[in-house]
Amino acid sequence: MSLRPENAQQARILRLLRGNGPHSRAELGEAIRLSRSKLALEVDRLAEQGFVESGGFAASRGGRRSSIVRLSSKLRFVGIDIGATSVDVAVTNGELDVLGHTSAEVAVHEGPTTVLGKAIELVEKLRAEGVATDVHGAGIGIPGPVSFRDGVPVVPPIMPGWDQYPVRETMSQEFGAPVLVDNDVNLMALGEHHAGVARSIDDFLLVKIGTGIGCGIVVDGDVYRGVSGSAGDIGHIQIDDDGPICTCGNIGCLEAYASGTALARDATAAARAGRSAYLAERLEKSGALSAVDITAAVAAGDPVAVQMLRGSGHRVGQVLASLVSFFNPGLVVIAGGVASAGHSLLAEIRSVVYRRSLPLATGNLPIVLSELADAAGAVGGTRLISDHVFSVPRGTEER
Amino acid sequence: MSLRPENAQQARILRLLRGNGPHSRAELGEAIRLSRSKLALEVDRLAEQGFVESGGFAASRGGRRSSIVRLSSKLRFVGIDIGATSVDVAVTNGELDVLGHTSAEVAVHEGPTTVLGKAIELVEKLRAEGVATDVHGAGIGIPGPVSFRDGVPVVPPIMPGWDQYPVRETMSQEFGAPVLVDNDVNLMALGEHHAGVARSIDDFLLVKIGTGIGCGIVVDGDVYRGVSGSAGDIGHIQIDDDGPICTCGNIGCLEAYASGTALARDATAAARAGRSAYLAERLEKSGALSAVDITAAVAAGDPVAVQMLRGSGHRVGQVLASLVSFFNPGLVVIAGGVASAGHSLLAEIRSVVYRRSLPLATGNLPIVLSELADAAGAVGGTRLISDHVFSVPRGTEER
Repeated sequence: MSLRPENAQQARILRLLRGNGPHSRAELGEAIRLSRSKLALEVDRLAEQGFVESGGFAASRGGRRSSIVRLSSKLRFVGIDIGATSVDVAVTNGELDVLGHTSAEVAVHEGPTTVLGKAIELVEKLRAEGVATDVHGAGIGIPGPVSFRDGVPVVPPIMPGWDQYPVRETMSQEFGAPVLVDNDVNLMALGEHHAGVARSIDDFLLVKIGTGIGCGIVVDGDVYRGVSGSAGDIGHIQIDDDGPICTCGNIGCLEAYASGTALARDATAAARAGRSAYLAERLEKSGALSAVDITAAVAAGDPVAVQMLRGSGHRVGQVLASLVSFFNPGLVVIAGGVASAGHSLLAEIRSVVYRRSLPLATGNLPIVLSELADAAGAVGGTRLISDHVFSVPRGTEER
Repeated sequence: MSLRPENAQQARILRLLRGNGPHSRAELGEAIRLSRSKLALEVDRLAEQGFVESGGFAASRGGRRSSIVRLSSKLRFVGIDIGATSVDVAVTNGELDVLGHTSAEVAVHEGPTTVLGKAIELVEKLRAEGVATDVHGAGIGIPGPVSFRDGVPVVPPIMPGWDQYPVRETMSQEFGAPVLVDNDVNLMALGEHHAGVARSIDDFLLVKIGTGIGCGIVVDGDVYRGVSGSAGDIGHIQIDDDGPICTCGNIGCLEAYASGTALARDATAAARAGRSAYLAERLEKSGALSAVDITAAVAAGDPVAVQMLRGSGHRVGQVLASLVSFFNPGLVVIAGGVASAGHSLLAEIRSVVYRRSLPLATGNLPIVLSELADAAGAVGGTRLISDHVFSVPRGTEER
């Protein structure tokens, strides 16, 4: 099924049922402000299209008992979050309750065929477990710049083979359903907005500190992508004319100081220079250090690792302080692998932002860790695609 | 008159007539997608309320001649732009054609009674010249933070007596019409969007470099104000831990380097130190230097002044480079008194932004000077209030 609602009333009914669960026809008519007869017409059309089904009768409110309308129990949305080293897949029903969630290790630099193949395999696995029948739409997150309109990655760094690869078209044919492709950080922001720590906030920022650093911008409940889709790409904001060389070829970018990649580089240097026995031991065991090792070192109380993590938080805080003054968000969410190292990073970010940003902008500003953590991207993917499937196709909306 | 349209159709008719001028009933019906009889009903209601009037008959398209509908020629909107040292007033008709425009010198630190009194005097003067009859709404810009919801300034620096002063209420009673109060930079952005260089752009930034420095943010054609109304307040972004003390009490703010106030301070120092004969002569004549003197010195080719202006552009460019990477706008407009010094400032800003921002974000990004210059704020004020008057009151809109 790849139908869409025929008019704005139908779209409103679907979104209401998604957000608030089953309704009696009487409640639905009141909420949508449609007469009983007009509502019946629209609900019947939605039922014919397979969007909704009957769920028995509501308790009587005095007169005739009103029948219950709910989203079809056969609706399935898929969210796919492609990270630098793993793929994460969630399948939900129409209300976006997660029915199945799984992930696998796969490096994004292995190219789109391998990575998307792995994602399809994971969806098949969940299907086989009885979680999914047909797929009615999928939202896919990519760890790099994306043309949202075209559904393709655009010159993504560290992703050989992905530039202009037709991700949306390939996956749409695979699933026989609508697919949208977005930057992974945007999906994480949508996920936190839908079911996480940003549930009640319409204007907020989500900063992901992982292998790279990016920011999801939500304005009035929707992702703001900018005119060429690169909004929120804060990893390459220059914070020092004179700093380390970044993977992008420029000098002194935020990522070159504060990302997981930068931390791994600094941790390796510290281990080799004998400044941290803990890190030296891990380096000797595994031959290379990653952000995970720093997280472990911080948990073990290694002072050099704690210092590095605080340094990362300080740099992120510097950039964020400007963005908070500029954007005046209602919330800042900190997410990503490095953020999972927890409170010393968060404390440093808070300290810099609260000290440096405009008092008016920070007076009421919580800065918190992600609630959904690893699942945020996949959940956001299902939210993105359900927004699309539960809306009137462009050009046919009422004006 | 302080009526508002009764429903979304009426609001759409009014905005269409504002933007595109008189329409025949036939054209209006097509554009709004209403049947002839439904349209007649809404147009008649708008005529009864004094919003529209008949403008004769259109040329026949075969059948009966269709009568022309236009906004009432009696509609008047007022835009008031309060600057640090002057007040600027424009009066427009319903289509926002400027019928009269005037300004007067008055320092904002003289307090709200004096400054608003002067603004009312200017409106009266335009009225006496036959430009205004009744006022149907006014949009007022204030050079400091504003609570848009409450219509009051919020702890504005350099504006003694203005904090929480009921500007909206006072002026609404004075005019007997709806009034909205906003930050002056937001109004300038709206003005450029309505009738200036940003006419066709829905996502852009307007940076004002005057006595202070601020930024108007337009998202999807509307001003983005942030959760506490301070969005765009970029003047106090810290660019150096170790820089000059700012009027706000912090250290190294953008304004402390690059505003008109900072330039006047540096020009005075240069004059006193004998580094610029031109500036020293002006200082001796007038006893104090302002941004205007630097503009004049730049025009006269004084190398010290040109260097200062470039320094200002460099600092603004540094901050803007980050904001462009973050926000990925379709246009950046440079405005304000210091910007009127022209191209050496603009060249420096462009050079820094194009070099430092993400290539994806600058690929298609024009950075240009304001087109409306001094009139942008007042025109934006009339646009803001007409958007409000030509919309359905909250709570009664169709859902």
